[in-house]
Amino acid sequence: MLALAGGVGGARLAHGLARELPSGELAVVVNTGDDFEHLGLAISPDLDTVMYTLAGLADRARGWGRADESWHFMQALRDLGGDDWFNLGDRDLALHVLRGERLRQGQSLETVTADIGIRMGVQVPVAPMSSHPVRTRIQTDAGELAFQDYFVRLHCEPAVRGIRYVGAAEAQPSALLTECLAPGNLAALIVCPSNPWLSIGPMLAMPALDAWLQQPERPPVVAVSPIIAGAAVKGPAARIMADLGLPVSVIGVSEFYGDRVDGWVIDHADAALAPVLRGQGKAVYLTDALMRDEPDRARLAAEVIAFARSLARHG
Amino acid sequence: MLALAGGVGGARLAHGLARELPSGELAVVVNTGDDFEHLGLAISPDLDTVMYTLAGLADRARGWGRADESWHFMQALRDLGGDDWFNLGDRDLALHVLRGERLRQGQSLETVTADIGIRMGVQVPVAPMSSHPVRTRIQTDAGELAFQDYFVRLHCEPAVRGIRYVGAAEAQPSALLTECLAPGNLAALIVCPSNPWLSIGPMLAMPALDAWLQQPERPPVVAVSPIIAGAAVKGPAARIMADLGLPVSVIGVSEFYGDRVDGWVIDHADAALAPVLRGQGKAVYLTDALMRDEPDRARLAAEVIAFARSLARHG
Repeated sequence: MLALAGGVGGARLAHGLARELPSGELAVVVNTGDDFEHLGLAISPDLDTVMYTLAGLADRARGWGRADESWHFMQALRDLGGDDWFNLGDRDLALHVLRGERLRQGQSLETVTADIGIRMGVQVPVAPMSSHPVRTRIQTDAGELAFQDYFVRLHCEPAVRGIRYVGAAEAQPSALLTECLAPGNLAALIVCPSNPWLSIGPMLAMPALDAWLQQPERPPVVAVSPIIAGAAVKGPAARIMADLGLPVSVIGVSEFYGDRVDGWVIDHADAALAPVLRGQGKAVYLTDALMRDEPDRARLAAEVIAFARSLARHG
Repeated sequence: MLALAGGVGGARLAHGLARELPSGELAVVVNTGDDFEHLGLAISPDLDTVMYTLAGLADRARGWGRADESWHFMQALRDLGGDDWFNLGDRDLALHVLRGERLRQGQSLETVTADIGIRMGVQVPVAPMSSHPVRTRIQTDAGELAFQDYFVRLHCEPAVRGIRYVGAAEAQPSALLTECLAPGNLAALIVCPSNPWLSIGPMLAMPALDAWLQQPERPPVVAVSPIIAGAAVKGPAARIMADLGLPVSVIGVSEFYGDRVDGWVIDHADAALAPVLRGQGKAVYLTDALMRDEPDRARLAAEVIAFARSLARHG
């Protein structure tokens, strides 16, 4: 199975899937639309979150960066008058410095990611959606913004009017993604509960993945709703949906994903929406969709796997 | 007065001079021949040592980097398989990241250094010898090596056969150095007890400074010997002198500096060498030339200042 993942929620489900699927049966492809250069460092927020989570190094409370982190670099940078709007932990910094160095040496983001994964002890193949730069740009009332400007510096305050995935149309999918999409290679595709517009959207904007999803006879695609009871578990998804005039629920997300998703995993809290989804021809699986701890991740992952397999059998 | 400084010994005397001279009467110009790019970071070891020392942030025991330092970045970098031959503390890293960023934005090394000095609370003007790259290269039995390769990675093990200061002949002196060298601006020039070949040599290789030193009617030049009782207080000076076939004493250093130095400050331990220096036409001042603590720095600085002034009067 292939999991498409972005930030925290996606990373957590990917972690559960990695525990529940036998070795060799899972690949994780990660959004790079949020990637950016900052202070000369190569920062890939979603890749970092996924890798740290899969390696057991992620900080749980903060939702980004590493556990047991220290902030001496950041304090010294602040004292020297450096840009301090993006927080970088001392240990986390090593990843960005190393990645920047390897990219400058001409290695691809996919190669660097694979090498870092091995060093971190990540047990499943993880790759960026593409080694070529894709950059999400947010069209807002305050003009078009680079993603991190919108997300971190401006705290998602400007109202979103549209989103562009610059470079996605030309981006060659990573080798791992290409292999997953080759005929016969995939049992199912799982869209993790990541932000549809910011984390999954950049991947869907790549022609190769889009073409695969448009095929009439393809493996089933199962999505886990990132919206539970009218709110995003984490991050600005609900805010963006409201800005875009969409219903802040799985219905709004389903409108965005359309025919690309065959089955929805939604929380019991949203049971009332199941008939609407079924009316759109979707399969629906109701469960406790919130991942509070590691057992939750494994439990939800096992349910998602079983649901996807049932769709493959009956699809 | 202008102090030419390199690493630890130079930084310490500069610190003493900054305490002893009234505000506005001292400028410090620092070697950049050891500067290098590492992991995409802009590292200026001598500038860093001088700035940290003048700001009271330097680690005394280690002789480089900052006091109260932590090493979490380094450990994480090592775990990820990154190059770990050059140690970078978490707080120290902020300086290299910030400098690299500003240089990439097109600021000169002199401008960046001045800004960092203000932020650190350095009370005297400090500038690099030049904003243009000068790179010391060590010709050894193992071939020609970049300075840090020789010094840090290979622990000064290959025997030195010669030294080149690549770029020095074309390097424009920094504005601070240019101003100091303008007619009438300088009471004396002080060559700090830094490594003559590695720290002072690159500066002497700049035509503007060389021409100033060759003038018959210039202010006095006083040097503090970095060699005491046949050994360097710190660093590879003695080893390089032996490799180059020079006597490991102030006599060997004096051979290298030649007529560019008018007066020598040497340790009581080397009193026997004073007649040799006097025989070469040098003024000699005997003292305790070892700087163990801050009072030592101030005491030695006061003596150097008085000695330089006496040469100016009688010169």
